[in-house]
Amino acid sequence: MGQELEVVPARQGRAVRLAAGQAIQIINTHGQQVVDTWCFNAADMAEFMSMEHIHGMLETVFPVEGDALVTNQRRPILMLERDTSPGRHDTVIAACDRYRYALLGCVGHHDNCTDNLFAALADLGLRPAECPSPLNLWMNIPIAADGRITWAEPLCKPGDHVILRAAMDCIVVMSTCPQDMIPINGADCTPTEVHFRLLD
Amino acid sequence: MGQELEVVPARQGRAVRLAAGQAIQIINTHGQQVVDTWCFNAADMAEFMSMEHIHGMLETVFPVEGDALVTNQRRPILMLERDTSPGRHDTVIAACDRYRYALLGCVGHHDNCTDNLFAALADLGLRPAECPSPLNLWMNIPIAADGRITWAEPLCKPGDHVILRAAMDCIVVMSTCPQDMIPINGADCTPTEVHFRLLD
Repeated sequence: MGQELEVVPARQGRAVRLAAGQAIQIINTHGQQVVDTWCFNAADMAEFMSMEHIHGMLETVFPVEGDALVTNQRRPILMLERDTSPGRHDTVIAACDRYRYALLGCVGHHDNCTDNLFAALADLGLRPAECPSPLNLWMNIPIAADGRITWAEPLCKPGDHVILRAAMDCIVVMSTCPQDMIPINGADCTPTEVHFRLLD
Repeated sequence: MGQELEVVPARQGRAVRLAAGQAIQIINTHGQQVVDTWCFNAADMAEFMSMEHIHGMLETVFPVEGDALVTNQRRPILMLERDTSPGRHDTVIAACDRYRYALLGCVGHHDNCTDNLFAALADLGLRPAECPSPLNLWMNIPIAADGRITWAEPLCKPGDHVILRAAMDCIVVMSTCPQDMIPINGADCTPTEVHFRLLD
């Protein structure tokens, strides 16, 4: 049973509580938007979805439909239950932050996924110890056999979505990546809104 | 000017303070030992060497001689000044922990790099908020173009070493990985000591 469709506006973050067994459908409404995604144990913010632990548990840097996404205690916290996109999501690149945009030449404030994480959690009265490495939904970062990584455009199309089902009571945070200085959100460097809904 | 050679016993951790400009030489004495390595800003434990930020800054998952290793504030904290080994070091796999060994079937206590990090820092009266993703010196984790990772044996030989030079006052932590249930420390699954010295 699906609840109403909600929006994550362009360049912003949202945090959502999921009970164990509930799921969240995240929709790439316009097809080229990267969504930095985190997940925290609702009972203990020190336990969170961990990319480096996922790598070891899944033996891949590219999780696919059916995979269990684990925490820094190696327990499943989200199941990647459904993925209608080509399934290329990044797990090795940090969330963008004020330092990233300063290094790119931005003067003054630039929206960024790290601040969006803290702001979205603050709306729930929560604060993580730091910004964990995110699951960058639809961020297309090919890794060559020699380790070289490249920044590519998303492979998905408008309306592609993932369904993430909670394996424990948790808090999912999404940030519509405000990167507009390199074409990681598509060739026109224009961050867009995405939509989501909770599923029982 | 080199100071005296010190040991990190097999299966243990050590934390060392480096002043900006000082360096640490880490020697793979017996040639097959993985050394999980972390580095924290001596003035702020919340700033530390970050693999996910290194990936974006260097555009590779395999840092090489000459690379600047950055923090979660994208500032260089260590320079990989010298590497006499084939230069294959892992940056995508989490430190081993009690959960890892339990999943491998170990009953009861097993030494692990995560506990070694906390114990080594406790010897200096310090405690990090969590265990950052480590620089796994000599850990050989090939990544295929499809993202699949494999657990391989170190490529280095006895006496190979790296020199890491501090770009700021910092604390370097090393753990001789106690993994003896898979051959990540060589075919005979026998963790060994390594040695290090401080260089001015």
